[in-house]
Amino acid sequence: MSNPHTIDSELLQKLVHDALVWSSLHGLVVGDRNVERSGSVPGVGMVHAPIALLPNSFPEVQWNQACEFAPIFNELVDRVSLDGNFLQDTLSRTKKVDAFTSRLLDLHSRMLQIGKKEDIRLGLHRSDYMLDEKTNLLLQIELNTISCSFSGLSCLVSELHRSLLSHYKKPLGLDAQKVPVNTSASKFAEVLAKAWTEYSNPSAVVMVVVQPGERNIPELINTHNVTSIRKTLAEIDAQGKILSDGTLQVDGETVAVIYFRAGYAPTDYPSESEWKARLLMEESSAIKCPSISYHLTGTKKVQQELAKPNVLERFLENKDDIAKLRECFAGLWSLDDSDAVKNAIQQPEAYVMKPQREGGVLVRDGICYKEHAVSELGIFSAYLRNKETVINNEQCGYLMRTKVSSSNEGGVAAGFAVLDSLYLT
Amino acid sequence: MSNPHTIDSELLQKLVHDALVWSSLHGLVVGDRNVERSGSVPGVGMVHAPIALLPNSFPEVQWNQACEFAPIFNELVDRVSLDGNFLQDTLSRTKKVDAFTSRLLDLHSRMLQIGKKEDIRLGLHRSDYMLDEKTNLLLQIELNTISCSFSGLSCLVSELHRSLLSHYKKPLGLDAQKVPVNTSASKFAEVLAKAWTEYSNPSAVVMVVVQPGERNIPELINTHNVTSIRKTLAEIDAQGKILSDGTLQVDGETVAVIYFRAGYAPTDYPSESEWKARLLMEESSAIKCPSISYHLTGTKKVQQELAKPNVLERFLENKDDIAKLRECFAGLWSLDDSDAVKNAIQQPEAYVMKPQREGGVLVRDGICYKEHAVSELGIFSAYLRNKETVINNEQCGYLMRTKVSSSNEGGVAAGFAVLDSLYLT
Repeated sequence: MSNPHTIDSELLQKLVHDALVWSSLHGLVVGDRNVERSGSVPGVGMVHAPIALLPNSFPEVQWNQACEFAPIFNELVDRVSLDGNFLQDTLSRTKKVDAFTSRLLDLHSRMLQIGKKEDIRLGLHRSDYMLDEKTNLLLQIELNTISCSFSGLSCLVSELHRSLLSHYKKPLGLDAQKVPVNTSASKFAEVLAKAWTEYSNPSAVVMVVVQPGERNIPELINTHNVTSIRKTLAEIDAQGKILSDGTLQVDGETVAVIYFRAGYAPTDYPSESEWKARLLMEESSAIKCPSISYHLTGTKKVQQELAKPNVLERFLENKDDIAKLRECFAGLWSLDDSDAVKNAIQQPEAYVMKPQREGGVLVRDGICYKEHAVSELGIFSAYLRNKETVINNEQCGYLMRTKVSSSNEGGVAAGFAVLDSLYLT
Repeated sequence: MSNPHTIDSELLQKLVHDALVWSSLHGLVVGDRNVERSGSVPGVGMVHAPIALLPNSFPEVQWNQACEFAPIFNELVDRVSLDGNFLQDTLSRTKKVDAFTSRLLDLHSRMLQIGKKEDIRLGLHRSDYMLDEKTNLLLQIELNTISCSFSGLSCLVSELHRSLLSHYKKPLGLDAQKVPVNTSASKFAEVLAKAWTEYSNPSAVVMVVVQPGERNIPELINTHNVTSIRKTLAEIDAQGKILSDGTLQVDGETVAVIYFRAGYAPTDYPSESEWKARLLMEESSAIKCPSISYHLTGTKKVQQELAKPNVLERFLENKDDIAKLRECFAGLWSLDDSDAVKNAIQQPEAYVMKPQREGGVLVRDGICYKEHAVSELGIFSAYLRNKETVINNEQCGYLMRTKVSSSNEGGVAAGFAVLDSLYLT
């Protein structure tokens, strides 16, 4: 694709201007930290989200590969989640040093003890990759199984880029169709609604677990004619109960599906009340996105374990799938893998991933910066099954994040990151 | 509809919060005057548009009436625009005292002299009404034929209100379906695209005349696969020319349709250059929205003239239509109508319109005010004809504006206005 550093300054100015107007009109906005009330009052002190002005070039081969990985990782998470002992064993050392993981494992143990089964299992995941400059390999950075962020904004950035590329087709000479369509927000909502359908209770609701003060409207769910409620963990503890048939009721509403937008961080559990709420939900028949097993499967330690020789084979049958995943695991080294430590001391360069570095044009707070940057690609995916029937297992859009790779004379700090999309090459 | 003053404070807080989040996510935003760069840099310093929290109750009978007026007013504008002498005569006194109207009339004269014909005529209008409390009559305030504002934001307010009414169906007890669907933005774009089709030149563009610095993306037009360009009057003067066949070319692009988002105010013409641009467009074969004749038909003076006895009869045949329009003209009195002046001195109360005053909940800058307020309803309409064929003549959504009707102890000034929608009763 054309080098953004060669775009003439008049065109650049027009592009920035149009990108900012588009962002304002389409909700590609965030709260402005410089405005005092913006954190507490929605609708005031808004600023466009930090964005890349143009999409990042990305090889089509690796893009297709990342999309192909999505259903395999979904399946893997599901299989691993069913192996309670594997999760407990793998995390046994972490349990000793990490109080938060320890509490999650206690909850998980209790579910094993009572023989809790999740017939309907729902995962909304995001697998993050970087492209290694030397090998051109797609390397997995992490797999997120809880509260995957940016699904709402990332699809807007792709739309913005497609719109700019169509509007400035002549001067840019780029093809808007090469920015893959990004369905992140609508697909996640659709699969949540499907899970609700599987629960088979027309009067039940989707409950979004939120941090205190957060009140995003889960309106996309509403477009599927599903009512949703938002509750903090403390509210769920105060207002929730389980009926004799296992049904979860919160504030008088029967809960079909629980989506966790909170509950993934130690700070989400300031008291025992929040842990009681988590336990209550886990014990209920509501569909949890994610269940405690899915949540634990997303920990770094479990992913490192899966990268070890012969571990994937315990969970997947297809040899091609196993080979594919293994190739992208190169980045997942654990410091308690003694072979890896030894090798790294002998050949340190082999253990340093060199992400592809590109020239990019980044826009933050209305100001445009031309910088060298590195990008990370996240692939959203959804998995829904009811007993033996897999209802959904697919890629659901993507998130491209681009970071300034070094600080420059202008004083832009390395690490400043923007939302981006990709342009297939 | 339920009295907004009786909504309990917890629900009110939730509604305000959700309304503000919704506004941020759907582009129902404006620049915040308190933020320095917000006027010059788009995408920074945004705040939600001032809005009514809930729709304003409005009688269905008068709503239907206002919708029925739309095609009749469209037809009337078209008929009046064809009577050059009527326009010149009616405005002859204004010409002497108002330099701007005088220049517009000169332009119009010149078109009469050269016998300029507009075969394809396009009008995007907005007719504004108030409801008189005493008579319950719908009274026309003015008819706008150029650069009708708020078509982009008003449809969003209706969507916001429908969304709140659905989401809070139980506690509010209101029916979202009673907020009429508002198609203002998409319909105007659709009719502009239809006009472009009538021009029958696939490589021609829609040109939006903008004020310097304004760079809104007319993206809705683009969704109809019509390319659009934005030019200031000064740019059109510098880059425009008419080819021998009457075609307008600006910056190398053939112009099929001209939409004026500027050119309606004296300040839009700081030098002769802007007037030259206006003349160039008027002389060309491009479809003008509006033409100089349509523009002049929208002046207050012409509307006052139309309100005089036996004037409507010169332009419309249908007696029912004439009777309907006459009834809503009650507000259009001219100070040089000597009968009206005499009568007003004798019976002043008959000449004061009392607009319906309601209790409302208005939200500005993230803060909610309960105030008494009056509302003005604008009906958008589109008219497109090619010679004898009327291609479009319809209502295209609405604009409801609600104003605080008196200043209160809290110090909110009378006149502070918000965007609103209506709830049919």
